[in-house]
Amino acid sequence: MEVSGTVASARAGDRRAVARLLTAVENRAPEGPEIAAATKGGDAVIVGVTGSPGVGKSTLVSALIGAWRAQGRRVAVLAVDPSSPFSGGALLGDRVRMADHALDRDVYIRSVATRGHLGGLAAGTGAAVRLLEGLGFDAVIVETVGVGQAEVEIAGLADTTLLLLAPGMGDAIQAVKAGVVEIADLYVVNKADRPGADAAVRDIRAMMSLVRRGPGEWRQPIVKTVAHQGEGLDELVAGIAKHREWLAGSDRLAARRRDRAAAEIRAVVETELRRRYEVTDELAEHVAAGEIDVAEAARTVLENGA
Amino acid sequence: MEVSGTVASARAGDRRAVARLLTAVENRAPEGPEIAAATKGGDAVIVGVTGSPGVGKSTLVSALIGAWRAQGRRVAVLAVDPSSPFSGGALLGDRVRMADHALDRDVYIRSVATRGHLGGLAAGTGAAVRLLEGLGFDAVIVETVGVGQAEVEIAGLADTTLLLLAPGMGDAIQAVKAGVVEIADLYVVNKADRPGADAAVRDIRAMMSLVRRGPGEWRQPIVKTVAHQGEGLDELVAGIAKHREWLAGSDRLAARRRDRAAAEIRAVVETELRRRYEVTDELAEHVAAGEIDVAEAARTVLENGA
Repeated sequence: MEVSGTVASARAGDRRAVARLLTAVENRAPEGPEIAAATKGGDAVIVGVTGSPGVGKSTLVSALIGAWRAQGRRVAVLAVDPSSPFSGGALLGDRVRMADHALDRDVYIRSVATRGHLGGLAAGTGAAVRLLEGLGFDAVIVETVGVGQAEVEIAGLADTTLLLLAPGMGDAIQAVKAGVVEIADLYVVNKADRPGADAAVRDIRAMMSLVRRGPGEWRQPIVKTVAHQGEGLDELVAGIAKHREWLAGSDRLAARRRDRAAAEIRAVVETELRRRYEVTDELAEHVAAGEIDVAEAARTVLENGA
Repeated sequence: MEVSGTVASARAGDRRAVARLLTAVENRAPEGPEIAAATKGGDAVIVGVTGSPGVGKSTLVSALIGAWRAQGRRVAVLAVDPSSPFSGGALLGDRVRMADHALDRDVYIRSVATRGHLGGLAAGTGAAVRLLEGLGFDAVIVETVGVGQAEVEIAGLADTTLLLLAPGMGDAIQAVKAGVVEIADLYVVNKADRPGADAAVRDIRAMMSLVRRGPGEWRQPIVKTVAHQGEGLDELVAGIAKHREWLAGSDRLAARRRDRAAAEIRAVVETELRRRYEVTDELAEHVAAGEIDVAEAARTVLENGA
């Protein structure tokens, strides 16, 4: 690939050029360092969007794209399929809504597969996010479904993480997802025209009251939206901007991004080290049977590693 | 420490001997391998008990001890404080209840601190569980409070994990904990004499219906208990036994224990490797700034590691 020409095309809105660069970065192609160098910098707001299937994530993402486009901003979306046993990997089920933006050269949407191992998502997707920022997108949305680990990784990737809920799906079922309550920067109660929206807001407030927060810490706003009608979008966009301001105001943004990069490096390093320092089934069986202790087994692994 | 004498005393019900051995194992004392060798084998049922503060875990654990003692079984409890920001580390708040068993030489109860890093819990506590089993305890209970990671680790330690819920605490708040829904082998709706118990059971069923299960897979029973009155305890004990039978019936038990041992070894190995292969802030900042890519940074770490 001729990197500088492809980068120039991508910046000018050529989606196939964007796609080629993303593929190279995700596959850790030899051009990786050259692409990184040609696309450094940028100033995007990076927003993670997560929540159970059925809460209307794709509709909200589409509405968010619309709101930002109305402000003249270029928007990219990475839709991550975490292959969760819960979600069954249903991804952007109503991709149709995205068709609203199909002809807009300043919108780029792409599915990203997870690598099936911890850290895989962070490693590949983190580089993709940085690339999109470097290509001049003003907002990068990382959308995911699933439970637990995938969402925590998303939070690691994003500056601002939105947790979507919807009323009328059964409080408990919704809140299963609220295991990710720790990582949300904004709560969005979507489908707020349905009965139960206020109850959902109350439940979130109740959950929030369980968390201790020091002075100066971020207090997550709760935004009610009806995404398919655009209701609440202004408030949501303002909330995202406000969180971004809060992050930038005190080196938190730089620290988040540095920590994110460190996590990505660590993921690659640990994948390699796990290959070099293998814990065999045989060794584990000896420990399980009490024939040797964990420390001794660990020494064996470290000595045999290369 | 004179290992064989201490082990003999511990087997005879000397709690101070049990405590000395546990301390040695947790601290990875030089006697570790000798202790492991002197205490291998055993046949305990290992039960994890988890759930939000206030659901009555300690009361239930106490009732479970009573039920097993009535069957003549020796019971040990490890109470883990995950130092969760959510729980504030409140641990066995009503330790008083445990006083029921204070004079019983066949009951051993101990608090275990987490090590403040991922894997620390698994490494130290796994060895402690194996030791207690090897000392002739017929049941080992690992109790924890907290959200997320700690509970997932507990599930890794236990053969059978109980997730406790209680009615009337606000469905959503309870179910925050249900982020751990994936790791529960039995659901226990405690305080089932309170209003809302049936609704809680319904909510759990609704959550369960979201999970696909193949043929032959375990279908989690939901047991209603009023622990302080001993109600539902027979059913709970039977449910635990049934799960254990299911595990043992098809090499699943051996596989769980082997995987657990492998995770413990890996935790120790990775702690050491993280020390040897350090990802510096400086390197992470270069990646965050787009000056080098992740692969290059990872290579640097791997080359500089020792």
